[in-house]
Amino acid sequence: MHSSVSDPGAPAAGIDLGGTKCLGVVVLEGEVVAEARVETPHAGDGEAVIAAIAEVIGALAARGPSEFSCVGVGAPGLVDRQGVLRFAPNLPGGTGLALGRQLENRLGRRVIVDNDATCAAWGEALAGAARGVRDAVVATLGTGIGGGIISGGRLCRGVNGFAGEIGHMVVDPAGPPCPCGQRGCWERFASGSGLARLAREAAAAGRIGAVVHLAGGDAGSVRGEHVTMAAERGDAGARGLMAEFARWLALGLVNLANIFDPQRFVLGGGLLDASPVFMDSTRETFAELLAGRGERPPIDIVPAALGERAGAIGAALLFRSRD
Amino acid sequence: MHSSVSDPGAPAAGIDLGGTKCLGVVVLEGEVVAEARVETPHAGDGEAVIAAIAEVIGALAARGPSEFSCVGVGAPGLVDRQGVLRFAPNLPGGTGLALGRQLENRLGRRVIVDNDATCAAWGEALAGAARGVRDAVVATLGTGIGGGIISGGRLCRGVNGFAGEIGHMVVDPAGPPCPCGQRGCWERFASGSGLARLAREAAAAGRIGAVVHLAGGDAGSVRGEHVTMAAERGDAGARGLMAEFARWLALGLVNLANIFDPQRFVLGGGLLDASPVFMDSTRETFAELLAGRGERPPIDIVPAALGERAGAIGAALLFRSRD
Repeated sequence: MHSSVSDPGAPAAGIDLGGTKCLGVVVLEGEVVAEARVETPHAGDGEAVIAAIAEVIGALAARGPSEFSCVGVGAPGLVDRQGVLRFAPNLPGGTGLALGRQLENRLGRRVIVDNDATCAAWGEALAGAARGVRDAVVATLGTGIGGGIISGGRLCRGVNGFAGEIGHMVVDPAGPPCPCGQRGCWERFASGSGLARLAREAAAAGRIGAVVHLAGGDAGSVRGEHVTMAAERGDAGARGLMAEFARWLALGLVNLANIFDPQRFVLGGGLLDASPVFMDSTRETFAELLAGRGERPPIDIVPAALGERAGAIGAALLFRSRD
Repeated sequence: MHSSVSDPGAPAAGIDLGGTKCLGVVVLEGEVVAEARVETPHAGDGEAVIAAIAEVIGALAARGPSEFSCVGVGAPGLVDRQGVLRFAPNLPGGTGLALGRQLENRLGRRVIVDNDATCAAWGEALAGAARGVRDAVVATLGTGIGGGIISGGRLCRGVNGFAGEIGHMVVDPAGPPCPCGQRGCWERFASGSGLARLAREAAAAGRIGAVVHLAGGDAGSVRGEHVTMAAERGDAGARGLMAEFARWLALGLVNLANIFDPQRFVLGGGLLDASPVFMDSTRETFAELLAGRGERPPIDIVPAALGERAGAIGAALLFRSRD
């Protein structure tokens, strides 16, 4: 469909289309050389989404030191191999939008679209915390858990382009219901909303008084940040809860280690701000649970390196994932 | 280390080194043109294993219509990228055996070694039920659950060569203990030994009287075959238990579908003889559980096509998995 972009050092633009903002970058030889952002339209149809992306691309073209012929887009939801958003519950006007084709018509540039977490993983693989690593799993811990898998140096995309939905791996079939229709998905435990749920249960059981105090005295208002803040201050109840959270996180990582045998896990997303209160216990529990641990080299678990730009950088580099 | 075998139609020998038998084939243009087998030595050291494989290779060379320069071996356990068996609890003398190097020295031929379930998956991918499918997961349901993953037409091997241990994906952290050290691994539910365990629980609870009768009246002697036999005869208790088994099987397949987005699942292994009593309900439960099911094409779940030869055929074709 497209001519191949053979020069991996060519300038390319990437867009991370999020639920709240639309962030764009131009990447040249692995470095960000221009950046622009607008708010994601909260109402309206697909046309408003296309217009927002076009605005960011226009700003990048005006600011950037280099012209770019290729635009990558990371979008929230299931993106098929034709660049159509097949399911995008968090983006008004998103579901059914032929993002790739409509943007190509509007921009006159080659456009590649993939899932946002897949883009973030690809960014970390080529230019971040998994650079040079041929087998890596990137888990993005936000409201849910997104993922991207690099196996043998290649992005696992799946037949439809939907691979990497690691947050919907069921780890407890008797667990809490998930909006996806299943029960006990990994993201019900090891994401930001999972932590908040664990915290509300612990608060209702009277196990985390200091955390409830931080939340203004109302057990129902407890959020993940209250737990991580109390844990940072050394509160025993909050630390116990973070150990429980870390155990769920490690359990899913062990599953993925048995399936993929990665050299490295990269953890990204908003929860990473709190990584000092769960990273060490996650690593310990992971090492304790992993089968054959005496017979295999240790697996790294490291924080993501690209922060909020990971998705946009990975989107810019998507042209290197197609072969 | 080796010169590349560039002709995919060249004759190649494959060995499936099992716990009970060592089966060898010569494959020419995707067809088996010679076969030989010996019993796997039940005592002794690695030297006895090497000798058994050499005997099969000798027999293949004597019988085969074609000379082969390359030998692939599928071995039970964790096989590293240097062809060393790092962990092989079911093969006496296996753990630590440098199978690849020792066989090369003995045979004077190029030798490639990989995990037995990985070989079976590769065989099904190139010459069996997943032929022509670029994204497939092959699950081998035996005493445990082995697996092999083909993503974008390539075998996922992992950094150490240990990828595909899908049976040790934890699906219920409060579940029964697994010899691997975890609790509630998928293979504690959806394998032959998983079915037997579910059956003994149901028998002890008095739910499957007809099955216990088939087992000679002793609830503790119930095996998976008794359940599948009673289910084939239409016994309601046994059919209910097979539905429970199918639910666990489907749950793990849904996890793998969310992670990989395959076009097809291939189910192999000894349990497949009983597939008429669980295949339909597995497909139904799978379709019911899969998220985004309205937005994605259906995923096939089909039986393996190569039977007991899958591992040996895949081993013979291993040279096509290296690039």
